[in-house]
Amino acid sequence: MSTTTPAGFRAAGVTAGLKPSGRPDVALVVNDGPDHHAAAVFTTNRVEAAPVTWSRQTLADGRADAVVLNSGGANACTGAQGFQDTHATAEHTAEVLGVSAGDVVVCSTGLIGELLPMDKLVAGVTAAGAALATDGGASAAEAIMTTDTVSKTAAAARDGWSVGGMAKGAGMLAPALATMLVVVTTDAVTSAEDLDAALREATRTTFDRIDSDGCMSTNDTVVAMASGASGTAVSPSDLTEAIREVCADLARQLIGDAEGAAHDIEIVVHQAASEADGLEVARSIARNNLFKCAIFGKDPNWGRVLAAVGTTGAAFEPAQLDVSINGVQVCRAGGVGEDRTLVDLEQREVRVEVDLHAGSDEVTVWTNDLTHDYVHENSAYST
Amino acid sequence: MSTTTPAGFRAAGVTAGLKPSGRPDVALVVNDGPDHHAAAVFTTNRVEAAPVTWSRQTLADGRADAVVLNSGGANACTGAQGFQDTHATAEHTAEVLGVSAGDVVVCSTGLIGELLPMDKLVAGVTAAGAALATDGGASAAEAIMTTDTVSKTAAAARDGWSVGGMAKGAGMLAPALATMLVVVTTDAVTSAEDLDAALREATRTTFDRIDSDGCMSTNDTVVAMASGASGTAVSPSDLTEAIREVCADLARQLIGDAEGAAHDIEIVVHQAASEADGLEVARSIARNNLFKCAIFGKDPNWGRVLAAVGTTGAAFEPAQLDVSINGVQVCRAGGVGEDRTLVDLEQREVRVEVDLHAGSDEVTVWTNDLTHDYVHENSAYST
Repeated sequence: MSTTTPAGFRAAGVTAGLKPSGRPDVALVVNDGPDHHAAAVFTTNRVEAAPVTWSRQTLADGRADAVVLNSGGANACTGAQGFQDTHATAEHTAEVLGVSAGDVVVCSTGLIGELLPMDKLVAGVTAAGAALATDGGASAAEAIMTTDTVSKTAAAARDGWSVGGMAKGAGMLAPALATMLVVVTTDAVTSAEDLDAALREATRTTFDRIDSDGCMSTNDTVVAMASGASGTAVSPSDLTEAIREVCADLARQLIGDAEGAAHDIEIVVHQAASEADGLEVARSIARNNLFKCAIFGKDPNWGRVLAAVGTTGAAFEPAQLDVSINGVQVCRAGGVGEDRTLVDLEQREVRVEVDLHAGSDEVTVWTNDLTHDYVHENSAYST
Repeated sequence: MSTTTPAGFRAAGVTAGLKPSGRPDVALVVNDGPDHHAAAVFTTNRVEAAPVTWSRQTLADGRADAVVLNSGGANACTGAQGFQDTHATAEHTAEVLGVSAGDVVVCSTGLIGELLPMDKLVAGVTAAGAALATDGGASAAEAIMTTDTVSKTAAAARDGWSVGGMAKGAGMLAPALATMLVVVTTDAVTSAEDLDAALREATRTTFDRIDSDGCMSTNDTVVAMASGASGTAVSPSDLTEAIREVCADLARQLIGDAEGAAHDIEIVVHQAASEADGLEVARSIARNNLFKCAIFGKDPNWGRVLAAVGTTGAAFEPAQLDVSINGVQVCRAGGVGEDRTLVDLEQREVRVEVDLHAGSDEVTVWTNDLTHDYVHENSAYST
């Protein structure tokens, strides 16, 4: 149930002293092959952290031997020195593992705008290299936590092969802390191209469909590695489906552990004219602070849903919109529907459905409510 | 200092019983002429309230004799019955005043998705008609308040003529309550075309530059009326400047009274390649929940400012960005600048400056911080 579930991988998590809390903060995931295919998707934030710039370059050839990750510092907005530090981290990791620095992916997470304590990080990488184990996935997942309250791992078992993964991040709720980091591993026999295509398709409908607070991080990285160690050749569609299963599981765990959240909200847009329309409408609702406050207050305020839908360019007629909250159709044809007091919002899980009556596409986005605790955690964290 | 400061206008505010609180809730502003020029700008939300649909139609000919406004109900998402109610409100107002219903602008504010109690509203309009006075601007301003803690009026005196105004709304913070409503009056001699152009230019750099929570209401209306009663012909540029002065004053009051806010934040973008670029960057910062939480926590977290800037398509180089908070340059050339502990965030007023080093345009946007009280007010209001 982790990055070491597939054959051909070792991992470790150690305490290097980067975090004031003394919790584990350096992780290593190594692909022992025989294949060393790799692919990744990164944040589209133009203010990207040094490790993102580095990893984008190293992965351009579709190969990676290892991913080194640290919590306790994002190494973002740290200028030329920050990039030198990422480079030095990759060089040291390569030396420890006996591989090329150009095949080492680097991920960092923590506060923006502060340089990493390189002496501690280098010693941590050495220790992680010594601790590598074929059952080390769980400890690696622990070492990448920041405000996460639980570590997040997943796996999808198939006939003779598997996909594993780990993630950190309190949703996109925490980009200053900073970031969603994900490592996915598989022992399937595939190609770098098929791995890349599978990862892009899998993230498109999983990590790209969670939106806790609309804030995009400087460090988001999802990296996949394929070892081929199972000896089983896998079709692109089977690979995509297995990776999608792991990504969906991890994405759901991120939303479930989002900072300060009291409700997990599933927003389903029915009968959209296109996937893009459905996504625009779902995201507009997911990013509406008033709607998110209402759900926190257990208030089925469908007017705020309609007001959010109305700001989009999607195809719909206002007088045809339907809205259901937890199965009660509170808005029918753009006006008042069932009695809103029938809606029960006591449970953590909330399902909001909007019918655009404009086509046949359906899109789901996950988000959280906006709570006192969100404000508290995000106003008090760095001071 | 109100809508009745210019000559040719009468106004009133009365209690019709629409609000459970028993506070005033129906207002009337009447233009006695001799001119009856009018212009308006409305919400761009496609889910627009019935009074917006009505008023858009009545103002197409550039003429209005009166504006009738109610708090205690937005009349949004109320279907055909809601439009009939707005129509009936205009008809009754016209009867009371002896004018045409097609020259009566209607504005409503309050909860979405509930029909107005028309018997109370009609009686209130009758009472307001009887209470009309040339010094009634202040009571009209009180009758349009919802979660506002103070009524908001302004005026700009010129040589022989003036502009007056009133506004309600806790910024865009409260679209479910719902709305920013503004009435601007002038006794200048002008044309409907010049009034329209002046209002659009004035709102573009005032009400369009405040963004408390990124949520767009279904009812936003800014309506201007010109009576010509001063007998003073005014140039388009002088008229624009005076209306802009009143709109800027009212906009600043809206931000100062935004729901739950603890800080008023002025975001200034320097050296943008275009006004559109500067506006995109300023709005991206103004809508970033993490940045807004940080200011609430008196935390000069410039990394969150950069992360917000990075999500835009504006012209800039990440390594050239400068950020100052209350005069302390905490970020220089995309990296660490002055000691952030030098920033004092104890005062309500906060000034964040971002230099894009990409051109010569400068744009300012006003917003508020995200606080416990914002979450509280917006989770508890309608339940």
